[in-house]
Amino acid sequence: MPHDSRFRGELGQQLRVDSVRASAAAGSGHPTSSMSAADLLAVLVDGHLRLDYSDPANPDNDHLIFSKGHASPLYYAVLKAVGAIDDAELLTFRKFGSRLEGHPTPRIPPTDVATGSLGQGLPIGVGLALAGARLDRTGYRTWVLCGDSELAEGSIWEAFNYAGWAKLANLTAIVDVNRLGQTRETMFGWDLDVYRDRALAFGWHPIEVDGHDLDAIDRAYTEAVSTTDRPSVILARTVKGKGVAAVADQLGKHGKPLDDPDAAIVELGGERDLRVSVPHPAPATPHSFAAPGATPPRYELGEQVATRAAYGKALAALGSARGDIVALDGEVSNSTHAEDFHAAHPDRYFEMFIAEQQLVAAAVGIQARGWVPYASTFAAFLSRAYDFIRMAAISRANLRLVGSHAGVSIGQDGPSQMALEDFAALRAVHGSCVLHPSDANQTVQLVAEMADRRGICYLRTLRGATEVRTPPDEPVHIGGSRVALGADATDAAVLACGATLPEAIGAAQRLAADGIRVRVLDCYSIKPLDADAVVAAADECGLLVTVEDHWPEGGLGAAVLSTLADAKRRPVVRRLAVRGMPGSGTPAELMHEAGIDADAIVDAVRTT
Amino acid sequence: MPHDSRFRGELGQQLRVDSVRASAAAGSGHPTSSMSAADLLAVLVDGHLRLDYSDPANPDNDHLIFSKGHASPLYYAVLKAVGAIDDAELLTFRKFGSRLEGHPTPRIPPTDVATGSLGQGLPIGVGLALAGARLDRTGYRTWVLCGDSELAEGSIWEAFNYAGWAKLANLTAIVDVNRLGQTRETMFGWDLDVYRDRALAFGWHPIEVDGHDLDAIDRAYTEAVSTTDRPSVILARTVKGKGVAAVADQLGKHGKPLDDPDAAIVELGGERDLRVSVPHPAPATPHSFAAPGATPPRYELGEQVATRAAYGKALAALGSARGDIVALDGEVSNSTHAEDFHAAHPDRYFEMFIAEQQLVAAAVGIQARGWVPYASTFAAFLSRAYDFIRMAAISRANLRLVGSHAGVSIGQDGPSQMALEDFAALRAVHGSCVLHPSDANQTVQLVAEMADRRGICYLRTLRGATEVRTPPDEPVHIGGSRVALGADATDAAVLACGATLPEAIGAAQRLAADGIRVRVLDCYSIKPLDADAVVAAADECGLLVTVEDHWPEGGLGAAVLSTLADAKRRPVVRRLAVRGMPGSGTPAELMHEAGIDADAIVDAVRTT
Repeated sequence: MPHDSRFRGELGQQLRVDSVRASAAAGSGHPTSSMSAADLLAVLVDGHLRLDYSDPANPDNDHLIFSKGHASPLYYAVLKAVGAIDDAELLTFRKFGSRLEGHPTPRIPPTDVATGSLGQGLPIGVGLALAGARLDRTGYRTWVLCGDSELAEGSIWEAFNYAGWAKLANLTAIVDVNRLGQTRETMFGWDLDVYRDRALAFGWHPIEVDGHDLDAIDRAYTEAVSTTDRPSVILARTVKGKGVAAVADQLGKHGKPLDDPDAAIVELGGERDLRVSVPHPAPATPHSFAAPGATPPRYELGEQVATRAAYGKALAALGSARGDIVALDGEVSNSTHAEDFHAAHPDRYFEMFIAEQQLVAAAVGIQARGWVPYASTFAAFLSRAYDFIRMAAISRANLRLVGSHAGVSIGQDGPSQMALEDFAALRAVHGSCVLHPSDANQTVQLVAEMADRRGICYLRTLRGATEVRTPPDEPVHIGGSRVALGADATDAAVLACGATLPEAIGAAQRLAADGIRVRVLDCYSIKPLDADAVVAAADECGLLVTVEDHWPEGGLGAAVLSTLADAKRRPVVRRLAVRGMPGSGTPAELMHEAGIDADAIVDAVRTT
Repeated sequence: MPHDSRFRGELGQQLRVDSVRASAAAGSGHPTSSMSAADLLAVLVDGHLRLDYSDPANPDNDHLIFSKGHASPLYYAVLKAVGAIDDAELLTFRKFGSRLEGHPTPRIPPTDVATGSLGQGLPIGVGLALAGARLDRTGYRTWVLCGDSELAEGSIWEAFNYAGWAKLANLTAIVDVNRLGQTRETMFGWDLDVYRDRALAFGWHPIEVDGHDLDAIDRAYTEAVSTTDRPSVILARTVKGKGVAAVADQLGKHGKPLDDPDAAIVELGGERDLRVSVPHPAPATPHSFAAPGATPPRYELGEQVATRAAYGKALAALGSARGDIVALDGEVSNSTHAEDFHAAHPDRYFEMFIAEQQLVAAAVGIQARGWVPYASTFAAFLSRAYDFIRMAAISRANLRLVGSHAGVSIGQDGPSQMALEDFAALRAVHGSCVLHPSDANQTVQLVAEMADRRGICYLRTLRGATEVRTPPDEPVHIGGSRVALGADATDAAVLACGATLPEAIGAAQRLAADGIRVRVLDCYSIKPLDADAVVAAADECGLLVTVEDHWPEGGLGAAVLSTLADAKRRPVVRRLAVRGMPGSGTPAELMHEAGIDADAIVDAVRTT
């Protein structure tokens, strides 16, 4: 049973005291940003949140995301109050080895995702709410605590836009409008009406409230839960550092422990040891999707197929084989071919429109509930969500990203549409894998294997058709490679991927006419790279030529050099990559100009 | 003199015909997305735009940005109508070598910036409007043509938020609400009222108009120009593919030439060859800022100074030496130390709040007018703007990005705040330079040199203090390095940067006690890397150890391997980098755990 306001007031003070104590013990942290939201959290956990903290994996649990992740002292103080951690662990905050990191991560259950990069918690919450409304189809609610400073982030408005449009009534945002940012007042201070008007314009139900009036907060949550046709946002006017005169509503008190924590604790009424029994959620049966079964597509040798087309067919078939597969796309599904999945499995497809941050964030939220999302757009535009991908790795998210239309080989559209940095950016994500198949059959197998891969998995597909060279039954796997030509050739080895593989084949054929025998290695898995095959090529051939439709930095050539350095092999390595800024032209013209076509490969092999 | 509606109607039809012709000649492109906005552009250039197309560098010119860059056929058709290009060049659209790329770039004057990644033109326009209102202080206006699909991008709302807050009345957005996206109807179709309510809530003056009613468009522009207390947005209801029945207002007609261009041209009334004389802007004297002169800060050897603190002092001094220096920050200026510039030069400092896309976009717009902006935030959060940085390179922008608080050496805040991918991401930007000084005096010199560097320049600063080891008068330069210890040592060379430099020194001192003589190379310039010094170390030492506070992919170690491969040198290279996901802890604990401290360096040198 929920308690009365007196208890809740005491609980709020306890959350403040524990925020002050944890930050003092750490010697760093954000106590004042925690104190402003303490009453909001006290009322939330005492009567509104439905979460079995003893069973974080309970599928019916509500979800609570601290989008303002720097209020981690408050988050951990709540975990103590609900019995998920004890006081001794609370005081390990920010210490080496502690689960209580400077900003929340899934290392401490039931935390779904990492936060700390502002503006990400709400769009991820949209993903969880989507999963609840459209996939699980049960009654859990997603609560997201936001700061007012982060309302300047565009990603917040992508979330407002999408959730309002999709009428996600199972989503409640709580904005802690404490007026003060890190260095100055926020853009709109305590002018809640500005935020209210925006919320209304974006299709949300706004509720303005004094964030320290416990009864008003209680009514606001009740109103939010009873609003069933749209998401709600509680706009709470609060005081940063509330409860301690030395810091309350003052600039210069952001992100540091209190100068005199003992005095502050006294002012807050001293330490307490209240416990709240958070109600457990009502059990429900999550929806599951029929999986009638389907065989993956097969392509015959010699067919000309774009790998993006193979992606669409493979994903649609995978969706028929498994009911947990989900697809999202950034309003280019007829380019990425996610449209094939959409046509086959409309209930598991989400059109995220031109909003790549929300696209990736939604996938992060959806995977947090155990679904297996594939998120696709043009490869170049995944760069729009790079911070979200970086954070997804900290969230220990299992994410499948698919980028089409990369490199100069797209031709006429010009450099704005050409991902030339995607390998570098995605390789530099912790635990990631980076794949770039050169033909349709490779694509089919990699798409399937990605489903069970942990971490961030990135697949680059091609706009143009390539010849199917991999037999449909030949195994292809993450971390593998394929000798496309010249298994016993030793004059040189050309390491290629994607659009440069046909160029390497063409070059090898031309060189063979001159008696130069070249091995062509199809490095469809760039991270992890097939070290054995690369080292064998180095040992047996001496000269390696890498060729990729990517800038010289951080791609296939870099991966090869890294692998060889680790293996203590030191062959000659010539790296062909795009070095000048491309313009428009035909794919062949642009690949020639960039020096990544058969002509350039022939020259690189011949140069002594 | 502006013409009457009849002329403008003919001009609009000419723009449509030329969009159809250019796309047909190219065999690709977006004619239907051009045809919807043709009337809007016809009226704009005939009576409202003030731009001397014969003198693109005229400082008083208005600026016209196609945020919907795929409407490039229309953009180029306008260039023909105003006499900037001839018909023959129009028909080179998307062909190899043409200035008329698939999406506009500065290769064709007076284009300020590249577009084609949706949602970027408006925030860059905010930068140009800021430059006009607060720096140049002259009368030019910035006009931005947006699509309706791109209103789903959060970056658009960062721009609405900032421009509304800053009351940038010299900015006019024109939204071509043609209802249809690439694969389906947009989220709100022709419901202009949704957009109007949002614009109002974000402090803009909205004007709803029929985008094919020439007189109404004319009145709307007049109203926008006469609105002097806030930015205006013209919400124009238009028909995609307007004028050609075979494509008008139909799905499936996005991004492809018309099936029967000849018939379409007939339907549009045939080819025309109208010319518009766009009025020239009124001459004005741009504001300039006093530069009283200042000597850069100097630090004595042995001082303990954080490079972020040196950045603030150096930039403030540079701002005193040069009136063209500008600083922007993402509401963390007391962390990045941009606050020093703010204090010294408040008129040239822009607080961009927690909105990193708008932060970088504003810098792109400001540099387009010849100012020299430095944009700073935590290094990790520059990843939020990665697509903007990528596009800035295509814009040939000169941009200085400064990221503080990178790597595990920040300590307690945890991985969400630790840039560990910034070297990889920024190295993979065309023409970029990547700098990471290890002490205050290096920082001072690099900050000054960045001002005149072309392209994208990135400087990573440190949170914690490091010992000043570089004498204040020793030259430091982009592309350089510094032998910090052991110029004649040949047992091994340790290549370090930033926080790992002191660790390398410590390791070398410990190894010296055992008679192992180690050279320590301070690689403060990671791109370009000092190839001569690295090759010399390789030749003279045989064993190289690289050590960096960064993931293993794409950073200093990768740059060293690349340089050695180019130089055909093949020493043993051991690369120390952060390989596991860090948590919180002290800097020393986390550097030790990551294997990038002196202990790890000692081990790496000793391992045989």
